[in-house]
Amino acid sequence: MTHTLPSYIKDAWWTPSEADLAQTPAAEVRDAVTGEVVTHVSSAGLDLAGAMAFARETGQAALGALTFHQRAVLLKQFALALTERKAELYELSTKTGATKSDSWVDIDGGIGVLFTYSGKGRRELPNAKVQLDGPVEPLSKDGSFLGRHIRTTLPGVAVQINAFNFPVWGALEKLAPTFLAGMPTIIKPATPGAYLTEHMVRILVESGLLPAGAIQLVSGSIRDVFTHAKLGDVVAFTGSASTAAGLRLHPAVQTGGVIFGAETDSINASVLGPDAAPGTPEFDAYVRQLVTEMTSKAGQKCTAIRRAIVPAELADAVADAVIERVAARVVVGDPRDEGTTMGALASTEQRTEVLRQVQRLVDGGGRIVHGAGQDPDDGTAFVTPILLRFDDPRAERVHDTEAFGPVSSIIGYNSPDEAAELVSLGGGSLVTSVASADPEFVARLTRRIASGNGRVLTLDRTSSRASTGHGSPLPNLVHGGPGRAGGSEELGGVRSAFHYMQRTAIQGSPEMLTAITGVWHAGAATQGDVHPFRKSLQELRIGDQIISEPREVTLADITHFAEFTGDTFYAHTDEEAAAANPFFPGRVAHGYLLLSFAAGLFVSPEPGPVLANYGLESLRFITPVSPGDRVRVALTAKQIVPRETDEYGEVHWDAVLTNQNDEVVATYDVLTLVSKTPELAEA
Amino acid sequence: MTHTLPSYIKDAWWTPSEADLAQTPAAEVRDAVTGEVVTHVSSAGLDLAGAMAFARETGQAALGALTFHQRAVLLKQFALALTERKAELYELSTKTGATKSDSWVDIDGGIGVLFTYSGKGRRELPNAKVQLDGPVEPLSKDGSFLGRHIRTTLPGVAVQINAFNFPVWGALEKLAPTFLAGMPTIIKPATPGAYLTEHMVRILVESGLLPAGAIQLVSGSIRDVFTHAKLGDVVAFTGSASTAAGLRLHPAVQTGGVIFGAETDSINASVLGPDAAPGTPEFDAYVRQLVTEMTSKAGQKCTAIRRAIVPAELADAVADAVIERVAARVVVGDPRDEGTTMGALASTEQRTEVLRQVQRLVDGGGRIVHGAGQDPDDGTAFVTPILLRFDDPRAERVHDTEAFGPVSSIIGYNSPDEAAELVSLGGGSLVTSVASADPEFVARLTRRIASGNGRVLTLDRTSSRASTGHGSPLPNLVHGGPGRAGGSEELGGVRSAFHYMQRTAIQGSPEMLTAITGVWHAGAATQGDVHPFRKSLQELRIGDQIISEPREVTLADITHFAEFTGDTFYAHTDEEAAAANPFFPGRVAHGYLLLSFAAGLFVSPEPGPVLANYGLESLRFITPVSPGDRVRVALTAKQIVPRETDEYGEVHWDAVLTNQNDEVVATYDVLTLVSKTPELAEA
Repeated sequence: MTHTLPSYIKDAWWTPSEADLAQTPAAEVRDAVTGEVVTHVSSAGLDLAGAMAFARETGQAALGALTFHQRAVLLKQFALALTERKAELYELSTKTGATKSDSWVDIDGGIGVLFTYSGKGRRELPNAKVQLDGPVEPLSKDGSFLGRHIRTTLPGVAVQINAFNFPVWGALEKLAPTFLAGMPTIIKPATPGAYLTEHMVRILVESGLLPAGAIQLVSGSIRDVFTHAKLGDVVAFTGSASTAAGLRLHPAVQTGGVIFGAETDSINASVLGPDAAPGTPEFDAYVRQLVTEMTSKAGQKCTAIRRAIVPAELADAVADAVIERVAARVVVGDPRDEGTTMGALASTEQRTEVLRQVQRLVDGGGRIVHGAGQDPDDGTAFVTPILLRFDDPRAERVHDTEAFGPVSSIIGYNSPDEAAELVSLGGGSLVTSVASADPEFVARLTRRIASGNGRVLTLDRTSSRASTGHGSPLPNLVHGGPGRAGGSEELGGVRSAFHYMQRTAIQGSPEMLTAITGVWHAGAATQGDVHPFRKSLQELRIGDQIISEPREVTLADITHFAEFTGDTFYAHTDEEAAAANPFFPGRVAHGYLLLSFAAGLFVSPEPGPVLANYGLESLRFITPVSPGDRVRVALTAKQIVPRETDEYGEVHWDAVLTNQNDEVVATYDVLTLVSKTPELAEA
Repeated sequence: MTHTLPSYIKDAWWTPSEADLAQTPAAEVRDAVTGEVVTHVSSAGLDLAGAMAFARETGQAALGALTFHQRAVLLKQFALALTERKAELYELSTKTGATKSDSWVDIDGGIGVLFTYSGKGRRELPNAKVQLDGPVEPLSKDGSFLGRHIRTTLPGVAVQINAFNFPVWGALEKLAPTFLAGMPTIIKPATPGAYLTEHMVRILVESGLLPAGAIQLVSGSIRDVFTHAKLGDVVAFTGSASTAAGLRLHPAVQTGGVIFGAETDSINASVLGPDAAPGTPEFDAYVRQLVTEMTSKAGQKCTAIRRAIVPAELADAVADAVIERVAARVVVGDPRDEGTTMGALASTEQRTEVLRQVQRLVDGGGRIVHGAGQDPDDGTAFVTPILLRFDDPRAERVHDTEAFGPVSSIIGYNSPDEAAELVSLGGGSLVTSVASADPEFVARLTRRIASGNGRVLTLDRTSSRASTGHGSPLPNLVHGGPGRAGGSEELGGVRSAFHYMQRTAIQGSPEMLTAITGVWHAGAATQGDVHPFRKSLQELRIGDQIISEPREVTLADITHFAEFTGDTFYAHTDEEAAAANPFFPGRVAHGYLLLSFAAGLFVSPEPGPVLANYGLESLRFITPVSPGDRVRVALTAKQIVPRETDEYGEVHWDAVLTNQNDEVVATYDVLTLVSKTPELAEA
């Protein structure tokens, strides 16, 4: 007997005792291609309650000590550590039946998620522990009482329960947002590819990069997870809709406040537009994509195309083209063999199940037009691609039966409305694709079907070359759909990190909101001893402020600016025409002139820690400035974002331009890069 | 016998037949104060399936024909229609036991939600039917394949099941976001105040403003709602946690894809800071707020303070101050009587239930220090405020038992950490408040407890005067909390409209994304026949573009601009110092100079439809401009937002500044106001 696959619990490797194994035999895991035993999997005797408590205590403490950016930097280091040893992962992946390109999706795809979250975490989240959601909500006229929404990390553990098809990607696509959010994770892979997930975790452990308690691995059953789960925990599941339904029923989810997310296989559709006749680039792209989705990962993808919804009059042509392409391109076999383009299913049991579902489709009105006559019990895990046709486009089975392998069905439609209706008969999907060069058709169909889909991919001659394809969830786009698809969302950049955080409305005085958020709120204390541009990032504090002297804006200034810049818009140059404009009292200063004067008023000219003004946000011109008005500017350090991997960081300054009557002329945020130390600027 | 309260179904008033009533007697509803029968409530024989189908067909069609702004305008008109007849609502409200100020919260509070959503809908959503979520996600290097997230209206019906305590606000706070999102609503009020909700709906119906099928009302049971609910429908419930748990179990929710939201009463806390000793403004504000929350609506608020968590050494002082204030300020009685400050509970049954829960608190270790000895069966609905103290701060009952009336308990803490722990023993709350003048204490406590709360209100001397109070959900802040509070979110401005929409990732070419979203995406077609500033809002099309001539930026320009504006930052004036800066090749042009030149390049000086440049968004300076470089600008109409109630609208222009090597110098959005017709500008 081979060894039992270890779990990683409480920051140590663990395997069941002989006694426990004697009582509860471990599950045998076989190579999908050769049938040899690869390992045994069991969690008999594992202290799951202890592991979850360890995550909530040690893991939360270690991750809670880090900011979003620090966690994001670690994600990149994880990605690099895995990249360095990815050959080991590719080697193991072959045993799951995966071809090299299937493994690329799983392994490089998973690593890619880490890179994306590392980048997005640093670009789109603050270098802090609290995230701000939306703008300040003024709650009183005098500004003494404000509202703001924040997100903070949930206090529990995130348990991920994964499907067998992507042992690496499946774990990493859930880990990245969870880790970024600051929640410790317990990974529970499906048994068939558990050895591959284990090796991925092993590489991370051996990298020495993991914060204490941040990641644990359960190789084997995690049946009791809800017994030990409580408010503040999240369980994220990927797999079949029926398993999800069973898990969701647990009282911990129903009434205990445990958040349960499910991403389940769905009966995804791909629609061919009426314009996309044979000979058009869209027809070719459609067929190419359909065959790719049937055969990639041997069709074992929850995003694969199950329903090819095509104009009724093109159904024959599509079927012919698909069959022709399968014949020309698809070589089913051992992924280790040169020339193999489609590997095995995950196991012989999976093969039997797939062919059982194909029979169900046939019983429901489907005709097999390619791949008929495969023996359900040939003892292997190999299936030839199967294409079906349904004459009745509303046949129930084609819309509710999933054969989780290289299987798709063609159905015909007679009007765009019918196409939309057929898509929706799937009862909620992860993704639908639409191939057409007609923007009006694509727009109408997409708007109609969007509410039933987590993702809609449109395919035309412009995008087909660069398209990442129907079946590929991308880390920056949401993955997950309504109804049959599980009703949850994963990925989508920082959006999914927010599923591991609580949004809370905060109310209070500017001082309190400033203290809680770490971001300066108008009305909170300010300090003005030194010009804040003379302070390095380390010295600068939020609330550091400069209030400039006033400057008169003369008619000569306006006239000159118009000539100099060429901006001779009538509101600046023609008193009578300007006065006729509903928003201006007469000739007024250019907005850009005011911005420029404001910069002149707050600038500190000599070299110093402020390196550059790299942008501006949320500029609004409020009160027009007439010749003779005097403007001044108040500039206050609002948010300070030191970079983890550079010697400088971003500072956002609150800028308010007022006139001689203290009316607000303009408000905006000035974005600057500021050196961490006074030295950099002098270097 | 009085009449049976009508329902409003399929755009007509409906009451049960005599036959149906004979079989299933209607529920009697009594005046909470006088005990007189007000009405009877029954939905026996009501065609709920038909009502839901009517909403999905007629209601969806009518609302789907409107844009977000058009729906928002209607919300304001609803608010005005209700305002005009609100005296009728106040009159009826008295029968529920509400004082005038209780009614104000319910009626004016509800109308206020409509006004807020009307304003926010127009300011924060486009005048369109699709909402864009987040920026463009580039998916290919050549720009031929992009990603974007959109939100579209769910295709079903939104059913709201409300609690008895706020018959008007409860219906309107769910209606406003639903209506704005474009979903038709079925309102199901609780039986005790159903006549008040019915009258509110009657006013809306009689206003003639309601789109067909947009609002229906079920007076009486809606027990079968889940039998008829399906994917695309939403059921939003407010009430007890146990009822919510029962509803949630239905297969329509568990596996049918029906979205179920629950907002349940919770054991909310209010924490007094260690600094807030008697004599401080925070102590006074804390006591004032506590008494208000005990007595407002006779404590029948899911947001009321159930646990007063105070420094152990201040517990006596708090109890004394509360009792003193209750004695001085609280007059329990008929809300019709002058001088009454606290009315009746909703019914005698409610009174019995409240006193039963108080007994449970006593049995669990609570000592009644005010309001003891009330006879549970005195036949009225009046209760004197009850204050309890618990010596054991961890006594289970104080953290899990809700007496839904004028009842609070005081518990003591000995450290800030213990205060946070006690708050979290509530198992998830709608709101916790913190009274303290110490920003560090407030910030630490708030960050710790935020993940267990939907809202945290901080109270100090600055904010106490304007504070809207612990118990008041505001339309612009989220309402709802994790765990015991139900786990859902309501309100929070447009955030809650999004709960009635599906977020979908869209992928495709710029042309297709432009067609689907109605917003121009870089790479999509452009038109440049006429200067787009010469086109009125009605003539303008997204993609209308001007590409300017190039302009050389000379050293003289830079030097002059520095002198003229006073912006003599060394990067523009000192070649050597500029070259030492890590981001600049040497002396470079001011960003504001480039903006100003760009305006000069794209401006169309004569009066015309473009009325004003009111702001700028997302400005980023990418490539520095050195003396001698030549810049040009491409300005493209990206988004067109006609206003519903003005003769002009907003146009967002995509601005890209490039140099002679086609490198991008700067990108930003120019925001302008543009007249709908050529005439306005000439008026």
